[in-house]
Amino acid sequence: MSKIIDVNFTVKTYNYKKPFHITNSISTQTRNIEVEVITREGFKGYGEVAPSFRVNGETTEQIMALLPTVKEMILELDTRNYLKIFNITDRLISSPGLKAAVQFAVIDALCEEYNCGVWEFLGGAKNEIETDKTVSIGKLEERIKDAVQIYKEGFKTIKIKVGENLNEDIEAVLEIAKKTKRAKYIIDANMGYTPKQAVYFAKTIYSKGIDVAIFEQPVIWYDIEGLRYVRFNSPYPVGADESAKTKQDVLRLIKNEAVDYVNIKLMKSGISDAISIVRLCESANIKLMIGCMSESSIGVNQSVQFACGFGVFDYCDLDSHLMMDEKNYRGKFKQNKNKMVVQ
Amino acid sequence: MSKIIDVNFTVKTYNYKKPFHITNSISTQTRNIEVEVITREGFKGYGEVAPSFRVNGETTEQIMALLPTVKEMILELDTRNYLKIFNITDRLISSPGLKAAVQFAVIDALCEEYNCGVWEFLGGAKNEIETDKTVSIGKLEERIKDAVQIYKEGFKTIKIKVGENLNEDIEAVLEIAKKTKRAKYIIDANMGYTPKQAVYFAKTIYSKGIDVAIFEQPVIWYDIEGLRYVRFNSPYPVGADESAKTKQDVLRLIKNEAVDYVNIKLMKSGISDAISIVRLCESANIKLMIGCMSESSIGVNQSVQFACGFGVFDYCDLDSHLMMDEKNYRGKFKQNKNKMVVQ
Repeated sequence: MSKIIDVNFTVKTYNYKKPFHITNSISTQTRNIEVEVITREGFKGYGEVAPSFRVNGETTEQIMALLPTVKEMILELDTRNYLKIFNITDRLISSPGLKAAVQFAVIDALCEEYNCGVWEFLGGAKNEIETDKTVSIGKLEERIKDAVQIYKEGFKTIKIKVGENLNEDIEAVLEIAKKTKRAKYIIDANMGYTPKQAVYFAKTIYSKGIDVAIFEQPVIWYDIEGLRYVRFNSPYPVGADESAKTKQDVLRLIKNEAVDYVNIKLMKSGISDAISIVRLCESANIKLMIGCMSESSIGVNQSVQFACGFGVFDYCDLDSHLMMDEKNYRGKFKQNKNKMVVQ
Repeated sequence: MSKIIDVNFTVKTYNYKKPFHITNSISTQTRNIEVEVITREGFKGYGEVAPSFRVNGETTEQIMALLPTVKEMILELDTRNYLKIFNITDRLISSPGLKAAVQFAVIDALCEEYNCGVWEFLGGAKNEIETDKTVSIGKLEERIKDAVQIYKEGFKTIKIKVGENLNEDIEAVLEIAKKTKRAKYIIDANMGYTPKQAVYFAKTIYSKGIDVAIFEQPVIWYDIEGLRYVRFNSPYPVGADESAKTKQDVLRLIKNEAVDYVNIKLMKSGISDAISIVRLCESANIKLMIGCMSESSIGVNQSVQFACGFGVFDYCDLDSHLMMDEKNYRGKFKQNKNKMVVQ
């Protein structure tokens, strides 16, 4: 018996070390919500929401206003009946990030009781992952400087944000590749291209000998046919991010043969749909990466535990906490340059 | 740390109370394999294989001969890293029943350590399920007598085996329905009909006012188009059993819109694929039932724990142990007529 007797939400503000610029969005700060779940026996679990208005329509205030709803949903339920709690919190449709944080906090508290890590509870497939680090959109020189710095710091995969200016993007990728030989690249357009622009972009850099591990979300999220067009006309594996929030989204992508990769983010899917998406993609031989929004270390911890537990991710893009000022490190994992280790 | 230090296989023979007759198969006895997994700290987990030559090509001897392979696969591994063990045992392709029993025994031992039920570990969605009970193929009077007896015993859903003689099947269903009013029916042809026979059967009994919850596996397992034909031309929900062994099978059924129901059996899928199939079907809004082969109470226990953990099964067909002579009851659930309760 591990009945939930209290749930707390706390707003925490984090500043980015430098403005984070992606297609149609520049962030300097994030106001996250920490979720605490407490059981009668004194076990405590923690989750975090990094609200995304761009992807989920979430605001910090909107999420804070859902506290009574969450309390009504889960108070007096037993963390041991966690799938019952997942089913109930699946109804938090207006905030998948909150769904993620509450669901994670519940299993985090349960794992305190079982005396195991959440990564073990979820499967214990591996105890270490590597993350990439991201180059924002910016002036050419800045993009190159950031990429070189990231590579020097020991990150083997560099994520390059593109999508606002096709020719500048091509130039940036070519110049970065010259100065970071042997790095791997994930190119993320965050929906910024048309399908034909995306194919032009991919074919152009391919003709210059650039190898790209994943060409992520080239087109607008609802254009599944467009994604499929890019997939079948591009030399690179195409990934869905904004197009792949729920398990139903991913099943539709599979039915339409629209992508090679799915980028799972707990903030888009919660724990429940993320688990289903892992199983769907495995069954369909679709490859997986895992990403983040603007989580601090305690929020990134959710994804590190998930990624180690399942052990199915070719690439981990879990660098948001590395890009922000955070006084007290809260992850239940050790960060050693590009490596993240659970114990 | 919970390293596996030993694995034991034991053959156990069980006799059916009366011969169990389905399409193209009559069983009087089953020789099952009990699987024991022991960890260094002394935790023990148990699983059972009910070999099915008809469905999986398994024999008792073939499975016993896999003991060294299983030992090589899992000795010295830690039960906490259970998904790693699932991935390795997924390679037991020649015996999905053995894969199920080994995977279950591993999490059974882990749950001993965590001091929880496997049903809780898998989600704890509900602590009680109801099973149906099955009427074999046989003479008309015998089918009616058995059905009336089952209904009197308190089973609310009666599973009726058909598939060897279309006209006798129709007569049997109509007569049974007259004498068991308000019962629910699952009709299982075990692949015995052609698609057109199946549609004729369904339309005929429908025209007499019979309500059928699931029309299971009307046609041969590999005829996915035939299943789809029956689905779109029959008034009843159509279910796949022999057509749905692996997660890939189920994804194909979903892509082909071939069925309304999937019958999950751990003996066909192991725990790993069964979990994926749950997630696939939930994502596609395909309904679920759970069934068994010829498991004794310790083998049926696997499915009871699974069904309670996930809580997603509209119908449970877990009656094999009720049909056989078993001296020592071994389930970690309480059987009360049609109800099965975990604690």
